[in-house]
Amino acid sequence: MADIEFKGIFPYLVTPIDQSGNLKEDVLRDLVNHLITKGVHGLTPLGSTGEGAYFPWEVKKRVVDVVVKTAAGRVPVIAGVNEMTTNGAVKQAIETERIGADGILVVLPTYFPLADQQVVEHFRAVARAVSCPVTLYTNPKFAKWGFTIPMLEELAEEPNIRYLKDASGNTGKLLSIVNALQDRIKIFSASAHVPLFVFMMGGVGWMSGPACLIPEQCVKLYELAREKRWEAAFEFQKTLWSLNVAFQNYSLAACVKAGLEMQGFPVGFPLPPQRQLDEEGKKIVSQILTNIGVL
Amino acid sequence: MADIEFKGIFPYLVTPIDQSGNLKEDVLRDLVNHLITKGVHGLTPLGSTGEGAYFPWEVKKRVVDVVVKTAAGRVPVIAGVNEMTTNGAVKQAIETERIGADGILVVLPTYFPLADQQVVEHFRAVARAVSCPVTLYTNPKFAKWGFTIPMLEELAEEPNIRYLKDASGNTGKLLSIVNALQDRIKIFSASAHVPLFVFMMGGVGWMSGPACLIPEQCVKLYELAREKRWEAAFEFQKTLWSLNVAFQNYSLAACVKAGLEMQGFPVGFPLPPQRQLDEEGKKIVSQILTNIGVL
Amino acid sequence: MADIEFKGIFPYLVTPIDQSGNLKEDVLRDLVNHLITKGVHGLTPLGSTGEGAYFPWEVKKRVVDVVVKTAAGRVPVIAGVNEMTTNGAVKQAIETERIGADGILVVLPTYFPLADQQVVEHFRAVARAVSCPVTLYTNPKFAKWGFTIPMLEELAEEPNIRYLKDASGNTGKLLSIVNALQDRIKIFSASAHVPLFVFMMGGVGWMSGPACLIPEQCVKLYELAREKRWEAAFEFQKTLWSLNVAFQNYSLAACVKAGLEMQGFPVGFPLPPQRQLDEEGKKIVSQILTNIGVL
Amino acid sequence: MADIEFKGIFPYLVTPIDQSGNLKEDVLRDLVNHLITKGVHGLTPLGSTGEGAYFPWEVKKRVVDVVVKTAAGRVPVIAGVNEMTTNGAVKQAIETERIGADGILVVLPTYFPLADQQVVEHFRAVARAVSCPVTLYTNPKFAKWGFTIPMLEELAEEPNIRYLKDASGNTGKLLSIVNALQDRIKIFSASAHVPLFVFMMGGVGWMSGPACLIPEQCVKLYELAREKRWEAAFEFQKTLWSLNVAFQNYSLAACVKAGLEMQGFPVGFPLPPQRQLDEEGKKIVSQILTNIGVL
Repeated sequence: MADIEFKGIFPYLVTPIDQSGNLKEDVLRDLVNHLITKGVHGLTPLGSTGEGAYFPWEVKKRVVDVVVKTAAGRVPVIAGVNEMTTNGAVKQAIETERIGADGILVVLPTYFPLADQQVVEHFRAVARAVSCPVTLYTNPKFAKWGFTIPMLEELAEEPNIRYLKDASGNTGKLLSIVNALQDRIKIFSASAHVPLFVFMMGGVGWMSGPACLIPEQCVKLYELAREKRWEAAFEFQKTLWSLNVAFQNYSLAACVKAGLEMQGFPVGFPLPPQRQLDEEGKKIVSQILTNIGVL
Repeated sequence: MADIEFKGIFPYLVTPIDQSGNLKEDVLRDLVNHLITKGVHGLTPLGSTGEGAYFPWEVKKRVVDVVVKTAAGRVPVIAGVNEMTTNGAVKQAIETERIGADGILVVLPTYFPLADQQVVEHFRAVARAVSCPVTLYTNPKFAKWGFTIPMLEELAEEPNIRYLKDASGNTGKLLSIVNALQDRIKIFSASAHVPLFVFMMGGVGWMSGPACLIPEQCVKLYELAREKRWEAAFEFQKTLWSLNVAFQNYSLAACVKAGLEMQGFPVGFPLPPQRQLDEEGKKIVSQILTNIGVL
Repeated sequence: MADIEFKGIFPYLVTPIDQSGNLKEDVLRDLVNHLITKGVHGLTPLGSTGEGAYFPWEVKKRVVDVVVKTAAGRVPVIAGVNEMTTNGAVKQAIETERIGADGILVVLPTYFPLADQQVVEHFRAVARAVSCPVTLYTNPKFAKWGFTIPMLEELAEEPNIRYLKDASGNTGKLLSIVNALQDRIKIFSASAHVPLFVFMMGGVGWMSGPACLIPEQCVKLYELAREKRWEAAFEFQKTLWSLNVAFQNYSLAACVKAGLEMQGFPVGFPLPPQRQLDEEGKKIVSQILTNIGVL
Repeated sequence: MADIEFKGIFPYLVTPIDQSGNLKEDVLRDLVNHLITKGVHGLTPLGSTGEGAYFPWEVKKRVVDVVVKTAAGRVPVIAGVNEMTTNGAVKQAIETERIGADGILVVLPTYFPLADQQVVEHFRAVARAVSCPVTLYTNPKFAKWGFTIPMLEELAEEPNIRYLKDASGNTGKLLSIVNALQDRIKIFSASAHVPLFVFMMGGVGWMSGPACLIPEQCVKLYELAREKRWEAAFEFQKTLWSLNVAFQNYSLAACVKAGLEMQGFPVGFPLPPQRQLDEEGKKIVSQILTNIGVL
């Protein structure tokens, strides 16, 4: 898969756990098989939705192994590397590639704030430790830094840094990035905003927690965009938007996990102190999934 | 003009002043004539770009009068009502309508923060004071409040509140507003972000400071969108985007005023303590306007 | 009063209005006489509490005139100059001094954000327009700028810029300012935080909305601090703190106006769209004033 | 040590590492002995300064063990429990107590934002897992939550939650906390702000990164406050303030580690991607330590 181009719908997989917090490998396998059957183009375990910042490496390593082995080459796996220290991230990136992930998504959570140059050095060190394609991740709501265009230009010089998942939802900023970086870094849309606009800008795909719940709909939206049927795509996206709105009011991992439970995947709840969806929240998610036709 | 539907390109007019801060009425007339000749669909004096928050009412009254008389019915005039107190805004709205403006754009600057209900009451009081169509304006960067959907639903019950100009640049939020408010409130795009996406959502037009500088280009973008030539529109918009980026780094009024000076309209500088464009900034604006082909 | 040193308790006067928004001059006179009788060391009309950002100049001019004439030299008057434009602020400063104010407090509200240098130029221009002592005002919650130490050092070179009222409530930052500026700029404490700590740092006084309601208590706190009875002062301040806490939950002008109505001064309500205190809020303010012993 | 009352100066210990990121246990032992000799009243490993959010549990466990064994009962050890998940924090708290720490300091870093109730449940779960005294830690700059007074009142019902280290630097908020919680929760001052004011409020001590560098000075300040020599204390604190100011401009762990290297403790650098102090920064820290007389 050396020359693979990643594109299309990559659901952010949740990490299924039991009451004691132990990984439920069977449920993860079922979810992977289900999503591939529904036509998704790839899989992304251990992103934000996968609670990659919360689990210890022993668990995360098992997650990567289960997803890679279950996907078995049917679709590419871009696994999250989500660590606060550069040394830790480098080690996990190397092991993630060795286990067989086709690419990595590098997420950098923070405790102390970071200067731009430190952020660049972290992503560069991780990228140089592997030979697979690297996707940069940024979400200014969850970390204390954000990419500027000069930072992205510096990172784009690493040959295997080839994708950016920008979760800011700032379409204006994305347009500036597209204009400045052109084909050097390809864009994946965030789940919480308007993938259609990102496709119109030339974005290659959509990494998304909600795609766990509505994989066929996400694939259809992507196909409409590829066929440049923009208005049909826009009308279709409107029907999906309510899901994003609900997810902004609750915790992302809690919503996706609750929705998957409703669909028969016993993935459990997010790790405390994260909050489970309350009854009110479950009712809203259930109603939306019913409206979209997946429940 | 009772049943007029506002749509298309409405440049936010700058307020031309001399060194002593006095209004240059002749320059304002020239600018109005120039923009109408270039095909704009309406005119909006005294918005943010027009420094509506800074000038005393005597000056603002003259601005409305000059713009209305010069437009002379060729295009509609939506004049800004930009005051901190409700009483002041009501009085200015009444006089603005009496002078002959076809609609008003209500801007609410703040000193003390405001609760949602106070914001609603302000806009409602102003709307009830006039019979012309009212455009709601919000820019969370410049004021200490923002519209929620419940606030907009409450305001949409006023029959003459018919438009919203949301300058947040948050396309996700706009999509939620469009879904919730449907045809009750029509959307004008902000200048600083991606009007094309707003047109695709059903937005009716674009109120924009930069449209003073590139009126023909803005009209062309609007026409491409009306013809649903989305990709041509997107490619064309890309060429205009650099202007928006530059304007985010400098003060909007300073940029538009500097660009108009370059185009031969001696509009002066923004009122101190706002900063004039420095030499570096002028060079950047000049280069961008040259690239776009309007200098 | 050329060589006067301002120090002690300066209540921020509210601006009493009737239902139509007209100034109630008699009530203002009564309030001035009442506060002087209670022992305050000076008076500050048209600060934040005085809604200086909201009233037009004709009203503000009357306020200065009434306060100056009523004080009649018994205590100094430092009147607020609260305008968005430099030209407007310069004109009002000159008239304010001409009317007889002993000093001015310069407040700079904002619509567009300002760069540091623009802020410095505004304050310097206003200071150079008058010969009376100037107090710099900053409140990062209400404006889009704040003083850095280099900005204060630049401004301290103006011979009549001699005081700073920093409403940030950031005692750490104040300590840095005191260390850097030493005696070049004297500090007045904000109303919403801990004047005692500011006195301990060498602060010369306290400009305060709540001092309209509890003038004797504020004077007593100041006297305890002057006598360096720090622990008695601290214990006494504790009893006053509840008032500050309540005022943070409601609008400052609304609280002070409601409290003065309870004490028999019919000062009216804050200018809409600012919110009046609701019944719940009035009950809380009434209870606190009763506990302190002024109701 | 069951009925021990924690009070006085508790340096936040750095975590010394070599170039490969391995713990330098000997250096940690030397530092502990040095600080006890200098008169500190306790030790706090694995706080923010100790990079508790960055190290894996195997390293942190060793840190607690080394500090407890080296202190050997001469002063109490309050060890940081700094984990994103409640389960992880509970396990580490239990082991930390078992190893012999006299108390724990619970720090809650975040990736996804947390609702108040989730925060309360986390701290309560950790407190109930141990029998030693618990110190609550909050720093709104580093996490996405902060304590409200109702949250503290709920937590104060746990018999072993007895201390709060509030790093907000907001003396006004601390005063409200002191008024509301009285003796139920005792306050430790943050390092970055004005401990003297916290002592005046009844604060029992000062947990502080800089106390690693200037332990004798911190002890002296505490003694002056205990003797209620407030003005002498304030004058003395002034001389220490420059250290806090410098530390705000650089990373705390980087500053303390650089300063300890200058004093002959080869503690290494902070874990990347955190930035080491650059030459400019080292010069500033060196100059300040020389001025204070500890270099």
